[in-house]
Amino acid sequence: MKIDLNRNTNISLSKQIYQSIADRISSGLLEKGSRLPSVRSLSKALNVSMVTVSKAYSKLADDHIISTIQGKGTYVQTEKAMNHNDHNTDSTSLNWQLSIPDHLPRAQFWWQNISLTTKSQIWLSAASVHSSLLPEHLISRHISSFILKNPGILSEYGPVQGDLEFRSAIADYLISSGNSIFKNEIIITNGSQQAINLVARTFIGAGDIVVMEAPTYTAAIDVFRWQGATILSVPVDKDGMRIDLLLRLCDTYTPKLIYTIPTYHNPTGTVMSMQRRKELIEIAKDFNCFIVEDDPWREISFEKNPLPALKSMDTDGHVIYIKGFSKFLSPGCRIGTLAASGTILNRLIAAKSNSDLGSPLLTQKALLPFVQLDFMKKHLKSMNHILYNRRNLILKLLKKHMPEAVEWSSPMGGPNIWLTLPSWLSAESLVFEAQNNNIAFLTGSTCYSSEPEFNHIRLSFSSLDQEQLENGIITLSKIVFSFIDKKNAENSPII
Amino acid sequence: MKIDLNRNTNISLSKQIYQSIADRISSGLLEKGSRLPSVRSLSKALNVSMVTVSKAYSKLADDHIISTIQGKGTYVQTEKAMNHNDHNTDSTSLNWQLSIPDHLPRAQFWWQNISLTTKSQIWLSAASVHSSLLPEHLISRHISSFILKNPGILSEYGPVQGDLEFRSAIADYLISSGNSIFKNEIIITNGSQQAINLVARTFIGAGDIVVMEAPTYTAAIDVFRWQGATILSVPVDKDGMRIDLLLRLCDTYTPKLIYTIPTYHNPTGTVMSMQRRKELIEIAKDFNCFIVEDDPWREISFEKNPLPALKSMDTDGHVIYIKGFSKFLSPGCRIGTLAASGTILNRLIAAKSNSDLGSPLLTQKALLPFVQLDFMKKHLKSMNHILYNRRNLILKLLKKHMPEAVEWSSPMGGPNIWLTLPSWLSAESLVFEAQNNNIAFLTGSTCYSSEPEFNHIRLSFSSLDQEQLENGIITLSKIVFSFIDKKNAENSPII
Repeated sequence: MKIDLNRNTNISLSKQIYQSIADRISSGLLEKGSRLPSVRSLSKALNVSMVTVSKAYSKLADDHIISTIQGKGTYVQTEKAMNHNDHNTDSTSLNWQLSIPDHLPRAQFWWQNISLTTKSQIWLSAASVHSSLLPEHLISRHISSFILKNPGILSEYGPVQGDLEFRSAIADYLISSGNSIFKNEIIITNGSQQAINLVARTFIGAGDIVVMEAPTYTAAIDVFRWQGATILSVPVDKDGMRIDLLLRLCDTYTPKLIYTIPTYHNPTGTVMSMQRRKELIEIAKDFNCFIVEDDPWREISFEKNPLPALKSMDTDGHVIYIKGFSKFLSPGCRIGTLAASGTILNRLIAAKSNSDLGSPLLTQKALLPFVQLDFMKKHLKSMNHILYNRRNLILKLLKKHMPEAVEWSSPMGGPNIWLTLPSWLSAESLVFEAQNNNIAFLTGSTCYSSEPEFNHIRLSFSSLDQEQLENGIITLSKIVFSFIDKKNAENSPII
Repeated sequence: MKIDLNRNTNISLSKQIYQSIADRISSGLLEKGSRLPSVRSLSKALNVSMVTVSKAYSKLADDHIISTIQGKGTYVQTEKAMNHNDHNTDSTSLNWQLSIPDHLPRAQFWWQNISLTTKSQIWLSAASVHSSLLPEHLISRHISSFILKNPGILSEYGPVQGDLEFRSAIADYLISSGNSIFKNEIIITNGSQQAINLVARTFIGAGDIVVMEAPTYTAAIDVFRWQGATILSVPVDKDGMRIDLLLRLCDTYTPKLIYTIPTYHNPTGTVMSMQRRKELIEIAKDFNCFIVEDDPWREISFEKNPLPALKSMDTDGHVIYIKGFSKFLSPGCRIGTLAASGTILNRLIAAKSNSDLGSPLLTQKALLPFVQLDFMKKHLKSMNHILYNRRNLILKLLKKHMPEAVEWSSPMGGPNIWLTLPSWLSAESLVFEAQNNNIAFLTGSTCYSSEPEFNHIRLSFSSLDQEQLENGIITLSKIVFSFIDKKNAENSPII
């Protein structure tokens, strides 16, 4: 087990060890029953005192994550079992693999998706748009005729940076929303997930400081942790990232990169105010750091003009802009884009080459006609009309059925509602009951890189029809009610 | 500039610094004229003595890679200029980016492809099969009708691990050549390049020891360097990797991973003997390490039965098997596969999820009918018939036109001929003249992770037609002749 420790933060080493082991276990990367290294050997491997490791192990034991059997060793205790793969893992000839350390500290998003998709039918967890609202028939007809005329694209490696025609169309599309982006400043990626990876892998190494919002997108935490980053969190309020707290943090630590979802933030749905956008750019200038602006939700908007992207306000190459096309066009094509200015661009293209030599031309050509502004305007108008009604429906349902003690956001864009339960009620405790009722939601705690809040739920309304939404929210409300009633009964005096 | 130093090898620190800086420059990642850190600041950053850095800088200066201007600093001196991207990089407001360190030490394959594809028309450098020999028309007709019937695949994220039906077909195909691989032991990747990345990123970190053949596949060196691996090289002879030397090396250093292309090795075309295959598996068992078997050329075979894959001889989960489908089906689909047994599989799937959430279903479904054994047999028979003739033609042309002092391999599979020039003649010195004659070839030195041999050329015959091959080899032979004649003239006594 390889744990990257950062000795230059005020996060204690024992806490870093705790977090790293807890992450691996909650990602399913350390399986139930697997043995942890002894305190002595881990302290030696990490070059820290035995007291430090002991402290981390004690807290893990207190939290019922591991347990120590006297004289036998320390073992993972989580109830989560690896049940999604039926290959033989218990063959003893393969046991040597267990001792091979890896450099994959966390894969929470992966684990979450496995756990959520196995059992449920009402996916309040899926922040994707229902296929009936996506232009799959138009795209398929286009592909069908395009590929007959252009079979040659199957036999060539496309440009590493992406198809020039497609980059050009994307640049035009991004320019139309006020960005100044040239086609040669764009890299086509396998979804925005790969774009985040390219940036992280090029610029972030062990101990580099990355600032993320708390909460934020789970899979982005996975990536930055993978690179060994020290992640510092800045909370989000109704106007987005708390820039005042970010600034205070920058006084002590110089971040190399700030990852943000300023527009219809995932998971809370908030929008960073114009004032804070300006301040954030100033901070990036003052501290010579990058801002990674992840902007997948701008198109799913219920207001006339979403605030301009940070990228459009950036004159000095601080903002690396990431847009996925999965949410509003085609998740199946796995197309994302990364836009950056300056000399860093070549380093990112080289990283793309090292990663996979370039994305397939087929999926790029498939989306080409659909990133044109005219099509997009018409498509988004009709899609958003329906999604707006769904959003209003879920808000109405929540108001009607949820207990009073529960609060939620009313987002002006994006597919997510952020629910806040009473502080004593953990979302995790509802999961079992919800799954028994075929409902999946995202527990908010997975959206924090550290010190999670446990009383949040992310509900996505974009992939469900009216009936599923109604069934889902009514049932979920009943479950929440039952927990609150139980607590009230416990607290009420016995007459 | 972030340089990973390994203090546990017998490669001196100054040599490691030299190699790291030379790699960045030859990959175009440090541009001509950019300033290197001072000896004092680099020695401080790397925690090594100033003498060590000085030594590295001196050797770089001796090799005309950098130069020091008294009182001004040390600068990159290479003649290679970044000319492939026309974005503005000289805007002073972007200059702050130059001081941002990255973690991308090398991207030789990328650089090579940029340099080779800009000028030439006869690509003796392209180890890919000419489109007329690939089934692009069949695949395009299949896609065209499939997507009309199944537009839904455009609106769904496929399984992270890959489409089940496709994995099943690939398993059947691999089983037919003697491997015992289950469909749930397969991960679909974006070409074999991403497969190599997944393995490296999951298991290799700074200082881990990776053994590679010398020479080997350039882009694989790029990947392992990226992870900070310490790469040790084992030479290849006519029977493949020198296992005797590997064993001697293992006595001192324990490798974590051995990367090999045992069948029609890239770039030399040799085949690892059965005896050595067995010994290699034994070594992996003895030292608890992984073998990454990269097997992209098996299908391009001019003999009846290529030797079985290492994977088919592995009982204990040591071999991670990688096969790309670019070389004989469709480079444009960017489909590769990785097969592994045991508990490491889940870690690799998690890594795939972290990387890009999964490959597009469209390109997987596109190739589905074509990985069936019946189709493949027929297709490979006709393709290999033509490639065999091309291979015989290039051998004939070389024999007829090349000077006697030049030697070359006669591969029984794969698209590459490995040319050995007289030891005093560097392939690099021929590049300029060749490019002026519109010929591109691969300089052998890029295939070495360290201590390159400069007198090799890799010639690929698979992407060229008869006329191009004839023109290419005749012209290249003339160029080689002219250099040899010049040398002879210099050496001959003046009468």
